[in-house]
Amino acid sequence: MRNWLLPEYIEDVLPAEAARVEQLRRSLLDLFRVHGYQYVIPPMMEYMESLTTGIGHDLDLATFKVVDQLTGKLMGIRSDITPQTARIDAHMLNNQGVTRLCYAGSVLRTEPDGLARSREPLHVGAELYGHAGVASDIEIQRLMIKALHAVGLGTLYIDISHVGIFDSLIDGVGIGELQEQELYAALQSKDQAAVRQLGQTLSPDLLDVLCALVELNGGVEILDTAAIRLPKTDKIQKALDDLKKIATGLADLDVKVCFDLAELRGYHYHSGIVFAVYAEGYSGPLARGGRYDEVGAIFGRARPATGFSLDLRGVVASLPAAGKTSAILAPAVFTDASLTVAIERLRSQGAVVIQDLPGQEDYRAELGCDRILTKQDGEWVVVTAPELSNLSIGSIHE
Amino acid sequence: MRNWLLPEYIEDVLPAEAARVEQLRRSLLDLFRVHGYQYVIPPMMEYMESLTTGIGHDLDLATFKVVDQLTGKLMGIRSDITPQTARIDAHMLNNQGVTRLCYAGSVLRTEPDGLARSREPLHVGAELYGHAGVASDIEIQRLMIKALHAVGLGTLYIDISHVGIFDSLIDGVGIGELQEQELYAALQSKDQAAVRQLGQTLSPDLLDVLCALVELNGGVEILDTAAIRLPKTDKIQKALDDLKKIATGLADLDVKVCFDLAELRGYHYHSGIVFAVYAEGYSGPLARGGRYDEVGAIFGRARPATGFSLDLRGVVASLPAAGKTSAILAPAVFTDASLTVAIERLRSQGAVVIQDLPGQEDYRAELGCDRILTKQDGEWVVVTAPELSNLSIGSIHE
Repeated sequence: MRNWLLPEYIEDVLPAEAARVEQLRRSLLDLFRVHGYQYVIPPMMEYMESLTTGIGHDLDLATFKVVDQLTGKLMGIRSDITPQTARIDAHMLNNQGVTRLCYAGSVLRTEPDGLARSREPLHVGAELYGHAGVASDIEIQRLMIKALHAVGLGTLYIDISHVGIFDSLIDGVGIGELQEQELYAALQSKDQAAVRQLGQTLSPDLLDVLCALVELNGGVEILDTAAIRLPKTDKIQKALDDLKKIATGLADLDVKVCFDLAELRGYHYHSGIVFAVYAEGYSGPLARGGRYDEVGAIFGRARPATGFSLDLRGVVASLPAAGKTSAILAPAVFTDASLTVAIERLRSQGAVVIQDLPGQEDYRAELGCDRILTKQDGEWVVVTAPELSNLSIGSIHE
Repeated sequence: MRNWLLPEYIEDVLPAEAARVEQLRRSLLDLFRVHGYQYVIPPMMEYMESLTTGIGHDLDLATFKVVDQLTGKLMGIRSDITPQTARIDAHMLNNQGVTRLCYAGSVLRTEPDGLARSREPLHVGAELYGHAGVASDIEIQRLMIKALHAVGLGTLYIDISHVGIFDSLIDGVGIGELQEQELYAALQSKDQAAVRQLGQTLSPDLLDVLCALVELNGGVEILDTAAIRLPKTDKIQKALDDLKKIATGLADLDVKVCFDLAELRGYHYHSGIVFAVYAEGYSGPLARGGRYDEVGAIFGRARPATGFSLDLRGVVASLPAAGKTSAILAPAVFTDASLTVAIERLRSQGAVVIQDLPGQEDYRAELGCDRILTKQDGEWVVVTAPELSNLSIGSIHE
């Protein structure tokens, strides 16, 4: 094997793309900051119990495990940051009211995942703890849409659902967890035949309602249809009302809102309104999120929670490449005070100034410099220089 | 075990400190950028062969290993980023001339390491490939000192040595690797008795010279003493000349330069000039680096190389805490266009505006808001509000 080969679905981010990732990372964290979301840096590694308790088998399988040489206990490299921020909210910050947190960091996956089919997505997200009402769902969804606009994406499509509708339909009808999971999957693939097959033990009325869910997708008008076709319980009525409020709460943004009551995707920790955002030119969701009121409980302090995240590396990989960079080449003299002053002034204005090094004349074109800093009439001036290799740019450091 | 406990030497970075880390991370990457260093993002995980071949047993022991479920091969979570950038220089970018790269990312260590005694240091660094002369050593050291000044540290102390002096002294005298390592360690702890003990098989002249190394530390004047006391070979003369040029190249910066010819620390891949920076109030080196011309060869393309890195989390942990934050509280109405405009205008100016949520009146103090956005005479205005919990701040989102 060649030493420089990377594992499958693991990649370097090279300069042009890395600059783009860094620029968007800053835009997103700045956006979160002015909305009151505080940046936190949870660790790359935790005990497995902390990382995956209560949040399902999928994430457990996706998580690389290592042994802690100090204690012999099993640790995991994080495969998701959301449960870590829930832990921070529950135990490190301990606010009684709302806590808003945001983050940006790599996660590792045992198998490729997400938009870019990578084993190292760069998760950037925001989470809101301590508020159970639909106002916080709206706040989070608005922030997510603004974030995707900040990244440079145009018209967005948001798919919204409510896990609580399905949960309240099957609550108390006495089906096992396996059957529930299979029904989940059949609903999500909109397979009414499979739903009828799996639901043979259920009452015909309930079966009709579950099959109706499959057809309940479209614009805000399907919420009225749902109110007619679904049982008129308080829980379902409340869920439909909340979904309608979300449509109103997003009305002034450049996003097309769709509802899909059979869409129950999400890590198994989601508990209420869930959503995913799509855009033209991308094969999968750009960002996703939802309510996960139960996760805090595993850290000993149940708190309502909602949030979203996106894979910034995946998003950037599909964006057009950044433009050509510009730089100034300067002599490699560190002992000429007037030169040092001239260089530092240019750099303080944001210009890239590269100091030449002895013997590099033939390779200057690789540096991407389009100008040089040179002395004319006793003054250091910047001049355009298309043919760098032929130029003398002043004395070289001896 | 409680689910929210973190492993030893693993920590969350909470909001106040995380904001500081992020601010300094940006300052450093911006500084590197205007010096022509291109940002790259190497992966968190590689095959063990790539991560540790040729760079010594220490880093191998420090690296967490996982099995690649796709191939069954052993992968490691990176414990150092420098060899990764060497791989990128050698195989991904393939320049003939100088390549300048920089990075900022977490590494994991099986045991606590570095300034903050952490198992997850945040390595920020810059590397210069393709130039063997002392001018590139000077460039890297100047950049490092500017970086530490940008972080807010005052007077710095840099300790400089040259691994080549010791290497050329023992070259061809026929000692084994174990004896060489033990001599290394004895020199570094300035233990002349141990040097004499371990060097019994060497010639008396060589032994005297090795013992002299222990005494060769101090200001630039010790280089003249060294020229007298060390053998007058070309290699040693060149090394001493290069060290003298470094003293001249750093003369205009606020740093106290010391030379210590018995200081041979470094990851075992260093091959020429090596250095470490200290400051008052810190128990260990703040940043370190040096020349490592051999590392590229393991990726099939030998290139001269020099660079430095620092642990930003460790540096920030010892800085004074950041000042109090300021924020504006606004009503949680998403359907009032004039309010949305007022909020977005404030945010675009960099102000943090938090929209209130229903039922949060009692917890507003936790948000750190010192002003509110309120309607007066039909206009949205920002007013100082010391007692947030008693105020009505306008209608709440229904």
